[in-house]
Amino acid sequence: MINVLFSAEPDMWAVYEGPLNAGFVAAGLDVDLARDHAPDDVDYIVFAPNGPVQDFRPYRNAKAVMSLWAGVETVVDNATLTQPLCRMVDEGLTTGMVEWVTAHTMRHHIGMDRHIHGQDGLWRNTVYPPTAADRPVTILGLGALGAACGQALVHLGFPVTGWSRRPKSVPDIQCLHGDAGLTEALTGAQIVITLLPQTPQTNDILNADTLALLARGAFVINPGRGPLIDDAALLAALDNGQVGHATLDVFREEPLPVDHPYWAHPQVTVTPHIAATTRPETAVRSIAENIRLGEAGLPLLHVVDRTRGY
Amino acid sequence: MINVLFSAEPDMWAVYEGPLNAGFVAAGLDVDLARDHAPDDVDYIVFAPNGPVQDFRPYRNAKAVMSLWAGVETVVDNATLTQPLCRMVDEGLTTGMVEWVTAHTMRHHIGMDRHIHGQDGLWRNTVYPPTAADRPVTILGLGALGAACGQALVHLGFPVTGWSRRPKSVPDIQCLHGDAGLTEALTGAQIVITLLPQTPQTNDILNADTLALLARGAFVINPGRGPLIDDAALLAALDNGQVGHATLDVFREEPLPVDHPYWAHPQVTVTPHIAATTRPETAVRSIAENIRLGEAGLPLLHVVDRTRGY
Repeated sequence: MINVLFSAEPDMWAVYEGPLNAGFVAAGLDVDLARDHAPDDVDYIVFAPNGPVQDFRPYRNAKAVMSLWAGVETVVDNATLTQPLCRMVDEGLTTGMVEWVTAHTMRHHIGMDRHIHGQDGLWRNTVYPPTAADRPVTILGLGALGAACGQALVHLGFPVTGWSRRPKSVPDIQCLHGDAGLTEALTGAQIVITLLPQTPQTNDILNADTLALLARGAFVINPGRGPLIDDAALLAALDNGQVGHATLDVFREEPLPVDHPYWAHPQVTVTPHIAATTRPETAVRSIAENIRLGEAGLPLLHVVDRTRGY
Repeated sequence: MINVLFSAEPDMWAVYEGPLNAGFVAAGLDVDLARDHAPDDVDYIVFAPNGPVQDFRPYRNAKAVMSLWAGVETVVDNATLTQPLCRMVDEGLTTGMVEWVTAHTMRHHIGMDRHIHGQDGLWRNTVYPPTAADRPVTILGLGALGAACGQALVHLGFPVTGWSRRPKSVPDIQCLHGDAGLTEALTGAQIVITLLPQTPQTNDILNADTLALLARGAFVINPGRGPLIDDAALLAALDNGQVGHATLDVFREEPLPVDHPYWAHPQVTVTPHIAATTRPETAVRSIAENIRLGEAGLPLLHVVDRTRGY
């Protein structure tokens, strides 16, 4: 019997109890999933922020902490956490992200808002967008999400450049890295999509200097993390036309305060951190697989490197 | 020397003269392109509606009439036209159509309008769409445009059913045909895209009976031809919730009259016949290839079957 402790906001239990148990059965694992195991008895912790577990020290026999979320910035610096921490890599989350990114990229590409907002009887048929082949897209971040989004956009015809801090290689995407690569990746880009993890190195990566590299009137799409963008610099670039529109799903403070200038700006679309959400039915496969690996003494998947923060 | 007559609205000459001549040179064809060849001397006619040529009888030596447009309903019944009529099958037009259809399908799929119209400070993060795998899409029409759109949507994860009057086979798409197939194709569809040619058989193909087959709240997307939809039936289905939203690019009368109820309906998006437009640089390849075939005595491509009307 494997004891798995569930620690998340109270209303998450109803969402996850059934799928998790079904996933464990499907994986052939004999699991006792509960919210109240004695700390010494806990083999694994399924974790989300704002649950009861904040101090990991009592769980001295736990072999791993499995995050339900892809972003782990709220727990990675917890000094009491000495167990391996696994990020969520959920195919449902990836699918949702690809769909949101594809949808908003196509929306900006074809100039859809002109018509959605223009239902006034005027026949606006004089503006034709270039085809996707003439619309360079740059994705900052080539993890599971960035790579999947980039490949979907390549299939739709866009030339896609990807950038990551360290060298990576993703089929069909021009991959750049490092500081020099960042300048090259952003120069002339017409659409920029930010899918980097939140770390001290990625803070404000889109700022006055880097936004100035984009093609004039470029579109900024941020489904990653709020602090990737210097908000004041983005607002200035929107006001002077360097950035044509920004569609933002994540913010330094969420929910975005009602008086934040992003809400009122005509060239900003705020979406409420919906680009991708962990979907229980697929997320449990990732958790069950890691428990299977842990029980077999094999390396766990998606273990966070604490020195990098993701 | 091959004499090609250009007959279209006057302002089209400036758009097409350069690309057509460049395309003929690229194809190795020695062409004299003009708007005023003597009728007896004309070998081929490049044709769009509303140009000077309405009576084709004087062009008794012309080997073919090449439409600049994909839709030929305005010329196909011209009794003076005895020469072969070729439809435009333009890769640029297909690309534009795939982009417009993909964009609006994704828009409706992820529920984008809720956020585009909801920039009021409310954090609307409680509605999650299904993933594309759980969103059946049906395309009426499996010509070059319908097939390309369907395959792009399959790649984005949608289960796609295609329907055509006569049997067709398109990889990755479930292909149905005929009257019984139409009922099966529409039953339970959550998104319907109409890309049929305009013929007596396709008139009002979306009507009260066929709209009732769709999943409740389905989305209707019409980038094909206006008469494919019974407008009164669609407005009734929108008002009673059977159809959740309609995005319409084509209409029985264009420009759509300013007092048409589609403009004012909150669940209708009118776009001004922009889903796909023939792009000169790619269209000329299709015309040049047909002239090459005609001069070599080989069968022409995309010849309209006058008994079917497309």
